[in-house]
Amino acid sequence: MANATYQVEPIGSVESQLRDLDAAPRQPDEGAPPAYVVVRPEVVDAMADLAVGDRVILLTWLHQADRDVLAVHPRSDTTRPMQGVFSTRSPDRPNPIGLHDVTIVSVEPGRIGLDGLEAIDGTPVIDIKPVLGAPPTR
Amino acid sequence: MANATYQVEPIGSVESQLRDLDAAPRQPDEGAPPAYVVVRPEVVDAMADLAVGDRVILLTWLHQADRDVLAVHPRSDTTRPMQGVFSTRSPDRPNPIGLHDVTIVSVEPGRIGLDGLEAIDGTPVIDIKPVLGAPPTR
Repeated sequence: MANATYQVEPIGSVESQLRDLDAAPRQPDEGAPPAYVVVRPEVVDAMADLAVGDRVILLTWLHQADRDVLAVHPRSDTTRPMQGVFSTRSPDRPNPIGLHDVTIVSVEPGRIGLDGLEAIDGTPVIDIKPVLGAPPTR
Repeated sequence: MANATYQVEPIGSVESQLRDLDAAPRQPDEGAPPAYVVVRPEVVDAMADLAVGDRVILLTWLHQADRDVLAVHPRSDTTRPMQGVFSTRSPDRPNPIGLHDVTIVSVEPGRIGLDGLEAIDGTPVIDIKPVLGAPPTR
């Protein structure tokens, strides 16, 4: 168990006007453009109940990240001291998974529109989860 | 790219009194016991800045999940209609990643205590991320 590894199989990918990492905002509320998730046909049944207005957490695999990095200057600001990556949202980390809190603005077969996303075009998407409400609504 | 897969390498594992999936609560605020994350020596530098009181999102790999499931009765309640798994927090889903919003209650070398966690003993941990504050504090 201790040394087991696991295979992530993307469930889809990001379609966005953002093509360049250097131009991408760091968080969705920092000017991220609308974007789409294109869902693979094999798993399209899993999106059957997603609807416009749903708030979801999108999980991405940040495929251009450096997985050997364990400490960074937060937000690449070299005036800030180095921090262990588990205290930062750096994409460079051992398992480069991105979490994106977004709202669904359109749903068509195999394609979901999002209000704003800071991931670049082609980024693999690995999961979509609802934001949980209070216990009685779960 | 479309068919690429990625290898997740656990950064540690859960240490908990919970040993049985059937006894595990579904969410941390539904009676989950305190637990620990034991961090692998190779990545221990990445936890250098974690501190007691930090609220973090723990990402786990739910290794006992069924990855072929695309629809479920939410919370295993058969009186509720089947839903696509991307609208649920079901552990059974194509990439069985768990998100756990927890608070750190102790830090020692290679081991982090958490206030409450619904994952069972031995669950692989794949990332730890800070909960983001408002933009000025990032």
